[in-house]
Amino acid sequence: MSFNRIAIIGLGLLGGSIGLAVREYLPDSVTTGFDSDPQTRKRAAERGLVTTVCETAAEAVANADLVIFCVPPGAMGRAAADVADALPADALVSDVGSCKVSIAEALGKALPGHTVIPAHPVAGTENSGPDAGFASLFRNRWCIVTPPEPTDLLKLTALVEFWEALGANVEIMDAEHHDLVLAVTSHLPHLIAYTIVGTASDLEDVTQSEVIKYSAGGFRDFTRIAASDPTMWRDVFLSNKDAVLTMLQRFSEDLSALQRAIRVGDGDALFEQFSHTRAIRRSIIEEGQDDARPDFGRGDHDGSAAGD
Amino acid sequence: MSFNRIAIIGLGLLGGSIGLAVREYLPDSVTTGFDSDPQTRKRAAERGLVTTVCETAAEAVANADLVIFCVPPGAMGRAAADVADALPADALVSDVGSCKVSIAEALGKALPGHTVIPAHPVAGTENSGPDAGFASLFRNRWCIVTPPEPTDLLKLTALVEFWEALGANVEIMDAEHHDLVLAVTSHLPHLIAYTIVGTASDLEDVTQSEVIKYSAGGFRDFTRIAASDPTMWRDVFLSNKDAVLTMLQRFSEDLSALQRAIRVGDGDALFEQFSHTRAIRRSIIEEGQDDARPDFGRGDHDGSAAGD
Repeated sequence: MSFNRIAIIGLGLLGGSIGLAVREYLPDSVTTGFDSDPQTRKRAAERGLVTTVCETAAEAVANADLVIFCVPPGAMGRAAADVADALPADALVSDVGSCKVSIAEALGKALPGHTVIPAHPVAGTENSGPDAGFASLFRNRWCIVTPPEPTDLLKLTALVEFWEALGANVEIMDAEHHDLVLAVTSHLPHLIAYTIVGTASDLEDVTQSEVIKYSAGGFRDFTRIAASDPTMWRDVFLSNKDAVLTMLQRFSEDLSALQRAIRVGDGDALFEQFSHTRAIRRSIIEEGQDDARPDFGRGDHDGSAAGD
Repeated sequence: MSFNRIAIIGLGLLGGSIGLAVREYLPDSVTTGFDSDPQTRKRAAERGLVTTVCETAAEAVANADLVIFCVPPGAMGRAAADVADALPADALVSDVGSCKVSIAEALGKALPGHTVIPAHPVAGTENSGPDAGFASLFRNRWCIVTPPEPTDLLKLTALVEFWEALGANVEIMDAEHHDLVLAVTSHLPHLIAYTIVGTASDLEDVTQSEVIKYSAGGFRDFTRIAASDPTMWRDVFLSNKDAVLTMLQRFSEDLSALQRAIRVGDGDALFEQFSHTRAIRRSIIEEGQDDARPDFGRGDHDGSAAGD
């Protein structure tokens, strides 16, 4: 089996990118889409994010064989409840949220009797809204699928093939472990970035204009992810509270250790820690998850000197 | 007056970039260079980072009218002492270090009677060593000059013009304030990045391979600056201890507040903080200190959708 009528609920960065990717890589499939914001629906129609933009969510799912919820984690339950009466019995329900335990629960509760297989494409940019999506967002990125036990294997296979068609590499994982892994690789980095940008913008002795001017010293990298969608990230932290707090605790311990090393002037401890972290970057580049050009290739130099 | 014979002590990312930039933008000037590592000297000669690579630091400075120390902050004093006997009385002594109070003190102590005007070009990449430099590193970046009181105004003007010729915008600041500003915009971000990359690589319940695979969720941005030169950064934290610890304290307080908001489920507090930080990013892009393309333009999409 494969999906030919795909409903996308929520037409922001992720929903829009799925629509554009289906048009590009699965041209035989038809997409319907809905967004609760009329302005977003209008822009989605103008950009052709889906074949048909519908005026209600119920209308969007009415003939679907795959429904993907692309709304913030905290809005999943309500969005699902809105389509409960219109959803075909056979349709597979999935999503793209960053936390899987709470979303699986919310979708299951709102749509009893339906097959729900959550998924999370680990891809995104700092932009959000109907103008932010693009067809290649998922290429060479990982998509983590978290099927419940027991699961409908036929539908699971079709979902895996769907994401592979969009260019992603698929990994199967249980929802609890997903939430722990993403707490480290995504949620904690966002929390830290939001914090440091907040700290820097609220000092008495250093002006905001100085922070902006001298941001090339490292700070500007943090501002990119701290520009991500606030609603979505509020929901992520509320939905994955336990794993985030666990990882934050580890981070705080490690930061205290470095703070102590600075205070007592323990240069060896600092050097050892700072040497240790280079290997990880090398692996990330080797596995194609980041750009090897210095500075990510931004700026006007060609970076060739650094590679030889 | 202007500088025609420039000695560069230390031929890594910064020293090498100055040499290449002088060749490109000040073609009438001659550069001499020295590095304590014979391998670096060899590579510097192969790449033509300076007009002449010398076998001793004394030889490099013997005819210079400007000497720029481009070694890690902790090595400044020793590097300066090594040239004390050979340094022409009229030569201006400067540097490129990230902390100015301690370096000004070290250079002044090692070279009594000489004019020292420290400087700090706020530019760099995660790469280091003689292969990392490139001529355009300083273009459209800020260079902060921290003259002592009183200062030699003629030499100060010549130093400002030198950096402007290399493409930088120059700002004059006192050394103490510089150290506080950079503690926020550069030192703290590096410390945080080193910490989180260390935390993520040392978990029992999430493997290193998982961290690498799913790094596109935000983590990978931190690994870039955590790949910076460990020796230099060890010295920065030891040299700018007080300002770094002050900023770290503020950061920790702000992080505790967000941690509490997550624990008690205060979504409004999270949303407010996360909305607040977008404006800073916008200003950094407007002022040309970062790339407006989503994801810094890395990846294979053209990003055009996000701009309209």
